[in-house]
Amino acid sequence: MNEFLLSCDWGTSSFRLRLVDTRSGRVLGEQLLPTGVAATFDTWKIEHDRTEIERETFFSKCLNTQIDALADSLAISLEHVPVVLSGMASSSIGMAELPYANLPFSLDGSQVSVRWFAPRPGFNHRLLLISGVRGPKDVMRGEETQMIGLSDLLTEANRSVLIFPGTHSKHMYIENGQLVDFQTFMTGEVFSVLTSYSILKESTDVADLANGLTRYRANFQEGVRASESPALLHELFAVRTNQLFGKLTRPQNALYLSGLLIGAELRTLFQKPDWRLVLCCDNNLVDFYTEALTVLGLWQHTTRIDADHIRYAATEGHLKIMNHQLTLAETAS
Amino acid sequence: MNEFLLSCDWGTSSFRLRLVDTRSGRVLGEQLLPTGVAATFDTWKIEHDRTEIERETFFSKCLNTQIDALADSLAISLEHVPVVLSGMASSSIGMAELPYANLPFSLDGSQVSVRWFAPRPGFNHRLLLISGVRGPKDVMRGEETQMIGLSDLLTEANRSVLIFPGTHSKHMYIENGQLVDFQTFMTGEVFSVLTSYSILKESTDVADLANGLTRYRANFQEGVRASESPALLHELFAVRTNQLFGKLTRPQNALYLSGLLIGAELRTLFQKPDWRLVLCCDNNLVDFYTEALTVLGLWQHTTRIDADHIRYAATEGHLKIMNHQLTLAETAS
Repeated sequence: MNEFLLSCDWGTSSFRLRLVDTRSGRVLGEQLLPTGVAATFDTWKIEHDRTEIERETFFSKCLNTQIDALADSLAISLEHVPVVLSGMASSSIGMAELPYANLPFSLDGSQVSVRWFAPRPGFNHRLLLISGVRGPKDVMRGEETQMIGLSDLLTEANRSVLIFPGTHSKHMYIENGQLVDFQTFMTGEVFSVLTSYSILKESTDVADLANGLTRYRANFQEGVRASESPALLHELFAVRTNQLFGKLTRPQNALYLSGLLIGAELRTLFQKPDWRLVLCCDNNLVDFYTEALTVLGLWQHTTRIDADHIRYAATEGHLKIMNHQLTLAETAS
Repeated sequence: MNEFLLSCDWGTSSFRLRLVDTRSGRVLGEQLLPTGVAATFDTWKIEHDRTEIERETFFSKCLNTQIDALADSLAISLEHVPVVLSGMASSSIGMAELPYANLPFSLDGSQVSVRWFAPRPGFNHRLLLISGVRGPKDVMRGEETQMIGLSDLLTEANRSVLIFPGTHSKHMYIENGQLVDFQTFMTGEVFSVLTSYSILKESTDVADLANGLTRYRANFQEGVRASESPALLHELFAVRTNQLFGKLTRPQNALYLSGLLIGAELRTLFQKPDWRLVLCCDNNLVDFYTEALTVLGLWQHTTRIDADHIRYAATEGHLKIMNHQLTLAETAS
């Protein structure tokens, strides 16, 4: 492999580019931007109407701008350094749409769907675009690369569920080194639209949610316990009556709602009692999920992966996938 | 009782005023407006900052404008005709906040919490404001009056669940002539915020939902069946993959989501297998709920109340409640 690799995780609403020393695995520099593929796609459509610029060209141009910025900040040349790109960049609103890989899907990265892009004028890099994975009724783009990056840490149990909390939380079921199933939960987004646009907006205050767990742990726990009810659409209305009856303040009630939704998500894990749980989270949600798993009595079955490992999981995955692809290429040649 | 009664149902986002002949029960005229208490409350706050007008005065003034309009359209005088007012008008954003009545709550209207308002300058009517009902963790304002209005139709079973579909659906548990429990479900509002503001906006098209059921009945049924899953936050994401995988078009998918949410609401009724279900609905939702109850195998336990009875239920309730209050007053005097 080359001495350097450019590792890029381009999601719906964020962009992260890293320069990696391939021998040590060390990250030498990073560009982090809130410009996800959704915004880039919208800009491309406007540009395309004016200049007929192709989508792939436009996306590589945007990527090149960031590579140049990274080169400037590190004061080194990054010409010809190969790029690995994963996340929503391979979706219908990304650089180019790639078909999903299928289940079962190996943790070693050998089954990824990829597409190579040759260097082009204005973009002096070979680029490897990684697709996502689909199940019978679910999809992901990006988390599979993180999973591959974390695979060395996942050897202790034959059956594990990786939990990636977020706007669209993922539960990834891993059996004997293969991803055999996964589920997406709209937990974070449902919380967000209900507290922004529904009648519950008046009953909740999310201004200080991150510190809220420390101050209102009991209310969060109460929400997790309330998720026992099979009638989630009814329990949501209790968030309104909590406030109407003066039972909870609006900041307390935001924690209650968070507990209710995270509890409803995690409760589905009772269906797999003998699977080891692995919490994969590098942001403030880790405390929320730890607390909810504890309330549900699932914490004793849970391993928490260190935040640093999660933070570099995509890049670790990129290194593995690139290595695999190069080996394949050498074998073929 | 007086020859006439003014029957007013003032909700969060709608206003309905009717003139009733108290002897025949016939409705002689009606004013229907999209000006609910929420909008009136906001206007009052602005007026109050300018003129210090009191809330009760402001709300009676608005009511008087509509009474005058009704009198004009019928070409009769409505001076001194008493007014009965129910719905969100008795809430914290209504004319005056009244405490809720408690459970158990009799169907004959004898247990309503009310407040009389004497005539005042510019409002030549006695006004009876009706409060809502609260349970241990739920509230309603307005549906209790409809329930009282429908009570003569509810004699056939000792145990019935009245289902009022809507933005916030209500299930009202009635045992031996008393409301013993009730539950609110945020079904309609969750559908609305998800299709307006979440990622599911791109996966659904709600433009022709009313006709959709006829065209896409199979998709609605599939959604109802999918609500069997205890993981609602996960099933919601299938609405996205239905469209990503080209399985359903956006209009079909709107029906699927509707079935999923209505199914999740109605499934809770399995917990009370020996209660008679009574569907109370006068709008297009009646077809959706009928279909969902059929898919769930609950339709054989269901009675459907005629749309006309539902439409006049609040007014019927007003007549009963007014009668009761007048009898009480006469007994006391």
